[in-house]
Amino acid sequence: MKGAESLLRALAHAGVDTYFANPGTSEIDIVAAFDHVAGLRVVPTLFEGVATGAADGYGRMLHKPAVALLHLAPGLAHGLGNLHNARRAHTPVIAIVGEHPRDHRQYDSPLGGDLRGMAEIVSSWVATCEDPERLPEYAQMAAAAARKPPGHVASLIVPTDVSWSECDPAGLAADLPLDSEPIRDDDIQSIAEIVASGDTFAFLLGGSATLADPLRTAARVAAQFGASLYHDTLCTRLTRGAGLPRVKRFPFYVDDAYAELKETKHLILVGTVDPVLFLAQPEKPSRLVPEGCEVHTLAKVDQDASAALQSLAAALSTPETGAELVELSRPELPTGNLDANTLAQVLGALLPENAIVSDESITSGFMLMEATEGCPQHDWLFLTGGCLGQGVPVGIGAAIACPDRKVVCLEGDGSSMYTIQSLWTAAREQLDVTIVVFANRAYAILQFELARATGSADFEPTARDLLDLSNPTIDFVALAKGLGIEASRVATSEDFARAFGDAMEQPGPKLIEVAL
Amino acid sequence: MKGAESLLRALAHAGVDTYFANPGTSEIDIVAAFDHVAGLRVVPTLFEGVATGAADGYGRMLHKPAVALLHLAPGLAHGLGNLHNARRAHTPVIAIVGEHPRDHRQYDSPLGGDLRGMAEIVSSWVATCEDPERLPEYAQMAAAAARKPPGHVASLIVPTDVSWSECDPAGLAADLPLDSEPIRDDDIQSIAEIVASGDTFAFLLGGSATLADPLRTAARVAAQFGASLYHDTLCTRLTRGAGLPRVKRFPFYVDDAYAELKETKHLILVGTVDPVLFLAQPEKPSRLVPEGCEVHTLAKVDQDASAALQSLAAALSTPETGAELVELSRPELPTGNLDANTLAQVLGALLPENAIVSDESITSGFMLMEATEGCPQHDWLFLTGGCLGQGVPVGIGAAIACPDRKVVCLEGDGSSMYTIQSLWTAAREQLDVTIVVFANRAYAILQFELARATGSADFEPTARDLLDLSNPTIDFVALAKGLGIEASRVATSEDFARAFGDAMEQPGPKLIEVAL
Repeated sequence: MKGAESLLRALAHAGVDTYFANPGTSEIDIVAAFDHVAGLRVVPTLFEGVATGAADGYGRMLHKPAVALLHLAPGLAHGLGNLHNARRAHTPVIAIVGEHPRDHRQYDSPLGGDLRGMAEIVSSWVATCEDPERLPEYAQMAAAAARKPPGHVASLIVPTDVSWSECDPAGLAADLPLDSEPIRDDDIQSIAEIVASGDTFAFLLGGSATLADPLRTAARVAAQFGASLYHDTLCTRLTRGAGLPRVKRFPFYVDDAYAELKETKHLILVGTVDPVLFLAQPEKPSRLVPEGCEVHTLAKVDQDASAALQSLAAALSTPETGAELVELSRPELPTGNLDANTLAQVLGALLPENAIVSDESITSGFMLMEATEGCPQHDWLFLTGGCLGQGVPVGIGAAIACPDRKVVCLEGDGSSMYTIQSLWTAAREQLDVTIVVFANRAYAILQFELARATGSADFEPTARDLLDLSNPTIDFVALAKGLGIEASRVATSEDFARAFGDAMEQPGPKLIEVAL
Repeated sequence: MKGAESLLRALAHAGVDTYFANPGTSEIDIVAAFDHVAGLRVVPTLFEGVATGAADGYGRMLHKPAVALLHLAPGLAHGLGNLHNARRAHTPVIAIVGEHPRDHRQYDSPLGGDLRGMAEIVSSWVATCEDPERLPEYAQMAAAAARKPPGHVASLIVPTDVSWSECDPAGLAADLPLDSEPIRDDDIQSIAEIVASGDTFAFLLGGSATLADPLRTAARVAAQFGASLYHDTLCTRLTRGAGLPRVKRFPFYVDDAYAELKETKHLILVGTVDPVLFLAQPEKPSRLVPEGCEVHTLAKVDQDASAALQSLAAALSTPETGAELVELSRPELPTGNLDANTLAQVLGALLPENAIVSDESITSGFMLMEATEGCPQHDWLFLTGGCLGQGVPVGIGAAIACPDRKVVCLEGDGSSMYTIQSLWTAAREQLDVTIVVFANRAYAILQFELARATGSADFEPTARDLLDLSNPTIDFVALAKGLGIEASRVATSEDFARAFGDAMEQPGPKLIEVAL
């Protein structure tokens, strides 16, 4: 057996069976080995950022890693942006990166680069396997490192000759343990005392705490004491909709956060960290929590947030019921012009139960969450690391992970263009993904920030043109056609409702360009 | 004056006036400052890899840096692949990367990452300017670091608050010196002795030695002693065509290189390094030079290759004439089916004088260099670092650098898709760029390597499908239309000749999809 095959077998043994691949020559033995291991799903991409983003989306939904198969330093470089997002999402992802053969690395050949240094920037675990016989062991370590709570990017560098060498891999040991840092009773007790003290408090939930069970537990405690419930501004995966607790999104800007927390004495973090500004602003503090509000941690990011909340509820004898739940309610379908409000109403009116929303809609989407709050239960995946080009790749990974669920990717026109090649993979795999591009023909978020920086919305020519996407206008219907996806352009609420409704009814990839 | 403006002014003072930009909020003050400094050219891109690749193409043609303006860790990550290529090309490039404000960096906010570590992987010089008053000095250092022979990637990290702060920049010092490592007379003398010894020898030219003047000098010496003349397999910029010396391309594979050099006693490097395999292969040595051939260095990569050759010619009393020059000759226009041979003939028949060719054609292009050898003088830009997605970005940069020259980008269908967003920038700037996509509907180079690795061209299903680009077929005419570029699809030699001929006659961006 070649090393490459032993690698794939060991990963399969560890439950890793899905590959998003943009391989090159140094991975060719891995490519050849795909057909020698049963049950693998191998998904090609036209750019490495699509592979890494898809692995992120997959890991967010299944809480187990897929592999992004990358080619040497160039492949890892191209995939780095969406690995940054995966790192910020605490998603389990394995990057397998081919490297020059062991005795070739001493030469500074063109594809060479500091692969390890690059991997370390986005990974919690990086290793190079120097011995074909040890590939199974390294595969197992990579899988364990990726799955270690809350989830990590693990990068395994495999020299080409390690892949192509014959080997006689030893039997695999039992899976490595995945213990998270334990939660101490004392910590639960001290949070219970704060909660029961009569002081005002709020929960801020992130990481694994924004799934249905921990949300429900937190909501019960919040209801018991009249506390507020927030989720991180950017969540890895937020389960929401009718029947789930009402949770407010934590504010993005510091003034809003201060206003929100001005009566709150304690902010209790569950699966997340002390919130700070996404982008700092002149004269504004970085921390989003005002001085008078004390921050406490019930569960750190790498602890079991759900268990911590259960323990807290037990300590407080919290009733099983009482949480404020969202009632099923959808906006009316709007008519007339499309704008941020009406497009949100269309989505709220039509988003199907169990949908997965990958949200990279930036400015066009600021009313979406409110409009969809009362929809049937669904999951919302956020742009965790701020690296654009995440939306469709993450949607692709989610669709591969959950083939029975409708995936809706909400994209800005600017953000969609960073990884527009992703459409081809959606077409090739005939994924049940609907991509909605909100085409406002501008980097609107930057226009907003430029106006703030300059104190004027009357921009000078170079700055104005630099943030403008209308010259030439991008024709997303043509792009979708070019990459094998059925598409339409809509400019009214009625047309958007019709196109989006049809896409929700029919399986398979679709793109809708919403002309704003 | 804001720090951002003082930065741009200092760069302009150092001769840096061209920006390929994909900015974000942390660069917004730089965006605002563009209109306050006269004479800047600011070119927007839809993806950072386009910006960095364009800066590479610009620097290759003008031997001075353009700026790639990037947004924090995500922007640098997306731009890293083409900075890898620029590093391998020894191109002067300045990456300006916005960073969080100084007092915000202590917080681990979503866009944060190891910016410095990432920059160091591709840069010869990295600095963070912590003081607005010192921005001009840092700008000058960055420009000098980028221009230091032979050319480098210099990365300047600018915290947002350094950009937005008011400053009173001091007057600029004189430009920093750009001394290259001097060439010692002793070294010239010892090479002269080898050359005159009567032993067989060959020159291998790379870096700055593949421009017209050093090529002519090397060719005179080679003719004087009956020696061979090679250029690197992958050159930053090779000036070639009728009237220039005949120079052979150094072989890519080790067997070919061994055969080529089997009678050669000495290989003399000029502006390049001891050649090694691009990708190592089982049972093959990494070095491309056989044991019996001694390697000597006339000029290292960072030395003045042209001056070294002049000194050598002077030491050898080389006659002014005698170099074997290429005669003007073009292939006949072919008829019938398009294949690697006939498409090369079309290009050879029609490539205009002074064209700049950005070559990322991979397998489809393996006959192109021979077919165009006798064309009127032109420049050929190679894929120096092997990171795909270079071709059109480099062509864009070359077109901005040399607006009076026709740029021809030769692309594989696979390679073009890594940075397909680049078409929009070519359309927006109405650049005189013709993009030819050789659509063989496959990662053909990998099919070739897979056949070699497995010993069979009869691939198993997963491997076969992974290297196939025909499901769905990519419609490049639709993609071009979607991004504002006039395009056509051709399937015969006659149609390709007509479309390519028309594109050579008419200015402005065009795309031709060659169905193979």
